[in-house]
Amino acid sequence: MKNFADRLNSEIEARGTAAIVGIDPRFELLPMPLRRKFDGARGGSLRGLVSAIRTFSQEIIDIVAPHVAAVKPQIAFFEMYGWIGLQAYAEVVRYARKAGLIVIGDVKRGDIGSTALAYATGHLGEIPVAGHLAEMWMEDAVTVNPYLGSDSIEPFLVQVRERGKGIFVLVRTSNPSGAEIQDLEAVGKPIYLHVAELVRRWGADSIGEQGFSSVGAVVGATCPEEARRIRAALPEAMFLVPGYGAQGATAEDLRGAIRDDGRGVVVNSSRGIIFAHRRKPYMDEFGETRWQEAVEAALKDMILDLSTIYSGGV
Amino acid sequence: MKNFADRLNSEIEARGTAAIVGIDPRFELLPMPLRRKFDGARGGSLRGLVSAIRTFSQEIIDIVAPHVAAVKPQIAFFEMYGWIGLQAYAEVVRYARKAGLIVIGDVKRGDIGSTALAYATGHLGEIPVAGHLAEMWMEDAVTVNPYLGSDSIEPFLVQVRERGKGIFVLVRTSNPSGAEIQDLEAVGKPIYLHVAELVRRWGADSIGEQGFSSVGAVVGATCPEEARRIRAALPEAMFLVPGYGAQGATAEDLRGAIRDDGRGVVVNSSRGIIFAHRRKPYMDEFGETRWQEAVEAALKDMILDLSTIYSGGV
Repeated sequence: MKNFADRLNSEIEARGTAAIVGIDPRFELLPMPLRRKFDGARGGSLRGLVSAIRTFSQEIIDIVAPHVAAVKPQIAFFEMYGWIGLQAYAEVVRYARKAGLIVIGDVKRGDIGSTALAYATGHLGEIPVAGHLAEMWMEDAVTVNPYLGSDSIEPFLVQVRERGKGIFVLVRTSNPSGAEIQDLEAVGKPIYLHVAELVRRWGADSIGEQGFSSVGAVVGATCPEEARRIRAALPEAMFLVPGYGAQGATAEDLRGAIRDDGRGVVVNSSRGIIFAHRRKPYMDEFGETRWQEAVEAALKDMILDLSTIYSGGV
Repeated sequence: MKNFADRLNSEIEARGTAAIVGIDPRFELLPMPLRRKFDGARGGSLRGLVSAIRTFSQEIIDIVAPHVAAVKPQIAFFEMYGWIGLQAYAEVVRYARKAGLIVIGDVKRGDIGSTALAYATGHLGEIPVAGHLAEMWMEDAVTVNPYLGSDSIEPFLVQVRERGKGIFVLVRTSNPSGAEIQDLEAVGKPIYLHVAELVRRWGADSIGEQGFSSVGAVVGATCPEEARRIRAALPEAMFLVPGYGAQGATAEDLRGAIRDDGRGVVVNSSRGIIFAHRRKPYMDEFGETRWQEAVEAALKDMILDLSTIYSGGV
């Protein structure tokens, strides 16, 4: 069983980039050919809608798999369509793993100990069914919310230790109002640094051969100064960095999150890549009908942009 | 369209109790007759397992519906069985609503604005499908996590305002490590009071005719002193109070959460009621075969216990 952080870093090295792609499929933003196909073929049913977002997600996976180490499907965009949507989420996770990608489920779960155990077992563990153990959601790692403290995280740490899984704890999020609670100063430092200390403690016994812990941190690219302070407090954590691209952050904003040796991050872009057909210059060059080429071009541009500041550790 | 807090308070008055029942079905704790039936009939398949927890949950609803205003299904215990488990969650929510119960989905979701919109629309709102609007999960209210701040809550507030839905924001949780982040002192007061202030602001424009807001707070019964301070800061919020019973809190511990007029709370018990057949005195009196009677007896005892400190506002 390989340590998650080792696995993630090996894949980053193999692809030569820290870029990962967020899968946030929204029906109303899908390229017209896909919307039309599923609206028409199934009379605009819920199953047709969900087929469209599943097909779109799987095509995205086909396009990005040769280029990136991981994808980050956002479960909310499947959960909004009820259990039928979540059936598609499960299929997308499996599809991505078969394509050789590491899957980081962006689920942001967090609950008290006995309930957290149910989430951790369902997403990262195995459930006893008919005398054998079965995996349910099958992500390699998930994002978790720290507000309920250590006993809400411990069941996930069991999966980290025993099954080579990973977690990314929300430390400083990329959204405008992330500061409201996370930046409050408590006992001499902001809440996000208290959380960072907890993350360091939670991850202390899952540090792999490459010196990184499988307990990582979500640190928004939209707050570079905070990222610098969190990196100082958490030298061994892998940072999952959202906010690049559509949320406004640039490669330059990532410097604080990256270690001096050029390692330690995965940089996520969701809308900026998967809906590239809707923005310049890809919109003009490819349009909706060649949306797949728009996705690939946008991803290649992101990888090139990141290469200016990220050594990839190689 | 009736305000959620008004609806909840009317039901509390009608039943004469603030008790509600948490539906946390765990296969290994189910009464033997149910486990045997579904293990045998379906060869211990995943669908058999999920049928057992769905049937159990629906029987619980039948038993408690005459006595309480609401049930609180915990989605994690369904989600751990993948999308098949979540199909059962959806069925349980519908079943409870048909039984005349208010359903508080204990989902503890929380994400950045555009993603929070997906959660809020899926759980409390309507999705456009084939030219009409369809409800997906159909809860009356859900629990939410405040760590990401206002833009993560706003999409839920839209459903509160436009569709008479409710939310309960985690303020001070009942678990042992809830204090780690929530009790940190920041700018002269603990984090949970900062969150309470946000909750008051978020709920200011959804106060109903009975003087309560549809934006409530989750405040653990296991922390009575904190509950008193939160109540002082949040006079108009309905408190969803977990921790009574199996987690160790008593009726006396609830005093701080209840307003001087005897109103303002719903008190949840999950394991203490639904698995009453596993604990004294119900275990001895009813055993596993008469588990339904154990549930009813435990619930009646809880209601009696709460009546000593809770006026129900009548």
